[in-house]
Amino acid sequence: MTRDSRQDTKTCILKVGAEIVHNKGFNNTGIQEILKGAGVPKGSFYFYFRNKEDFGLQLIDFYAQVLLDKLERFAARTELSPLGRLQGFFAEFVEIFERNQCRGGCPIGNMAQEMGDLNEAFRVRLQLVFIRVQSMMVELLDQAREAGEVDSGLQSSDVAGFILNSWQGAILQMKVTKSTEPLKIFERVVFGELLHFTRKTSEM
Amino acid sequence: MTRDSRQDTKTCILKVGAEIVHNKGFNNTGIQEILKGAGVPKGSFYFYFRNKEDFGLQLIDFYAQVLLDKLERFAARTELSPLGRLQGFFAEFVEIFERNQCRGGCPIGNMAQEMGDLNEAFRVRLQLVFIRVQSMMVELLDQAREAGEVDSGLQSSDVAGFILNSWQGAILQMKVTKSTEPLKIFERVVFGELLHFTRKTSEM
Repeated sequence: MTRDSRQDTKTCILKVGAEIVHNKGFNNTGIQEILKGAGVPKGSFYFYFRNKEDFGLQLIDFYAQVLLDKLERFAARTELSPLGRLQGFFAEFVEIFERNQCRGGCPIGNMAQEMGDLNEAFRVRLQLVFIRVQSMMVELLDQAREAGEVDSGLQSSDVAGFILNSWQGAILQMKVTKSTEPLKIFERVVFGELLHFTRKTSEM
Repeated sequence: MTRDSRQDTKTCILKVGAEIVHNKGFNNTGIQEILKGAGVPKGSFYFYFRNKEDFGLQLIDFYAQVLLDKLERFAARTELSPLGRLQGFFAEFVEIFERNQCRGGCPIGNMAQEMGDLNEAFRVRLQLVFIRVQSMMVELLDQAREAGEVDSGLQSSDVAGFILNSWQGAILQMKVTKSTEPLKIFERVVFGELLHFTRKTSEM
């Protein structure tokens, strides 16, 4: 097998696994099911992954890459304002969820919810993904503040963390209501209000 | 068996199951494990629950009751202001999570994340729980607005939904970071800022 075809097989297993795990959860997915979906024999799986845990860790990297690529694509769209880039990133997900009947949710959020307590290696890997996403958001928020688009007394790191978590919670609610309304409320409150507010009272 | 002892056995199975599922997830928990923990024979489980799905649905009711009882207890604390009651409800959870090393998260949120796409009966039951929690929160927010504690142009129903979802996302992040810092950022942003803000600019 050439290096390219080996890479293809591995990517194929990850892609197929990513979809199944996204729909059913990690513990609820059997290796057999992934092999069947990818059309590869058992030995092939164990050639690329030491065990299911190793597969799960590489799956987190796979999901993370998709997410970070998308965020980077939006961050590079200089025809938009800094805040417009961040808003565009979320808006694209709203469209995706509308097309797929609000299914699946965020694969990183799902993994975090399911595995955060069960596997320390998963937890640490997932935490790193959130840190990377958050730091890209801080960068955009700082740029937006400089451009006068954000007018809030809150620190960018707190705001970015809060926004990221609120988004995850909105996705969870979308899964339960099978409606993108929670995502739209998120957009309204965060981009329409939170980032443009000033406290009426002076006490903190 | 008397009616009381029957009820005891059922409650015991639910309590033991609630703890295991809270730690490991629903699909990841076997009936055998619950039976062993509760010290009851298999026949006993199927006397009270038609199957694992029926058990899961009753487990949602069990979790919901704990949550709603707590919220009702805070809503009845008239020595606190309306906003103080809502804030106290969240603050109690922060203390609980601090004591238990940020483990478990919200059992209703976990179930929603795990089962929202997989089982329509679960999804509908979970949606009803969120609706009940949200409507109790709307009531407190309306009272807080009347008392002049909330000063925001946002509708109480939107704010309540947004707060509830942001809280769920903060819990998810807590599970990943193993720190209550995301919950404290939630408290700071929501109770310190969001509910007391007025938009600086006039355009919406």
